[in-house]
Amino acid sequence: MSSGADKPRAVVLLSGGLDSATVLAIAREGGYACYALSVDYGQRHRAELQAAARVADALGAMEHKVVRVDLGSLGGSALTDGAIEVPDAGTDPDAIPATYVPARNTVMLSLALGYAEVIGASDLFAGMNAVDYSGYPDCRPEYVEQFERLANLATKAGVTGTAMRVKAPLIQLSKGEIIRTGTVLGVDYAMTISCYQADEQGRACGRCDACHLRREGFRAAGIDDPTRYIPQRP
Amino acid sequence: MSSGADKPRAVVLLSGGLDSATVLAIAREGGYACYALSVDYGQRHRAELQAAARVADALGAMEHKVVRVDLGSLGGSALTDGAIEVPDAGTDPDAIPATYVPARNTVMLSLALGYAEVIGASDLFAGMNAVDYSGYPDCRPEYVEQFERLANLATKAGVTGTAMRVKAPLIQLSKGEIIRTGTVLGVDYAMTISCYQADEQGRACGRCDACHLRREGFRAAGIDDPTRYIPQRP
Repeated sequence: MSSGADKPRAVVLLSGGLDSATVLAIAREGGYACYALSVDYGQRHRAELQAAARVADALGAMEHKVVRVDLGSLGGSALTDGAIEVPDAGTDPDAIPATYVPARNTVMLSLALGYAEVIGASDLFAGMNAVDYSGYPDCRPEYVEQFERLANLATKAGVTGTAMRVKAPLIQLSKGEIIRTGTVLGVDYAMTISCYQADEQGRACGRCDACHLRREGFRAAGIDDPTRYIPQRP
Repeated sequence: MSSGADKPRAVVLLSGGLDSATVLAIAREGGYACYALSVDYGQRHRAELQAAARVADALGAMEHKVVRVDLGSLGGSALTDGAIEVPDAGTDPDAIPATYVPARNTVMLSLALGYAEVIGASDLFAGMNAVDYSGYPDCRPEYVEQFERLANLATKAGVTGTAMRVKAPLIQLSKGEIIRTGTVLGVDYAMTISCYQADEQGRACGRCDACHLRREGFRAAGIDDPTRYIPQRP
């Protein structure tokens, strides 16, 4: 991967999805040496972690770490608990979705914070988005600001006076705007997986909320959708 | 384990050490149905998780979950990285100790927060202590208050308006005061392990910071120390 000895270091949370790939491209464009962190929180499939590794490599991350956290053992979400069904797109727009994983962003940012301390990074980048994920409490701007305050109290940075910054550059962008930004920055979205229930080859179901948002995003951006879908039975 | 259908629920972080056993006893005394959570963050030995299970059972926890987080893969601490030596007691009292695990309390509280959401608990109890661990940034009262603010923004509780409370009842107590409190509440400290490098039988080294603090605590409390130590070579 690329040389970055003279650049400031940033930890970038990388899920293998469209949003976090865009965030990595933005952080690289911003002049950071990027350290990608994927959190394996007991997802139903491994395809997205493989996608994350491809994206980290393609976008010149200094390294890519995967930390496993067995959030599934706590239960409570369709994404980690096989007994809860992944819902199709639509239904109640104001409800917190069944795909909400309890405290997921807090856990992921905490791990990113630990990694940042170890490698001496001053910046955390994450792909939270308040537009498409308005039902998720931990995707709001005030949540991100609060985590930054916590980060500065929680760590050696807080003791030594070095500021820790938490950046969510996508937070106010629509999916179409995200896709246009990443396309300009050279992201190959064919590498990314957004689907909540992709198959082992990384093909998307085409029916879940994440597939719906992604397809609409490419349509709004006016960019061809490179997503591979699982062929539907008639 | 005990019945607690009519009690408010609390998640109690339980390490297997002296402090968190005391916290569990305090939460039980406070009338909570206690759900114990141990985080296996890649410790060097398993004895403390076994101690946590014994303590949870003895103090009537409703259940005891263990979540594994591979913090060791991030490196940076003597407690998870075999290449860094656990220091003996003493040396520089103002320095952040080599046994500091990056963002450990933030990660553990985040997991407790996820567990609390799943089981519908409104209270998190943890054993942070600002007296004996003054070198750790994430053991200070302002850190705990900041995490509580984050918890209320991060979760469904923040959306529905139910307050989430984060309690660190030991934060201003000396080790002697903690031991006296737990003894009154019926904690059997012989079950607990504080040593950073206990052996597989749960016997303590007698030389590390944690052993030193624990021994001094029993002395200050005027209570017999039930700790089993590894016999020292002459």
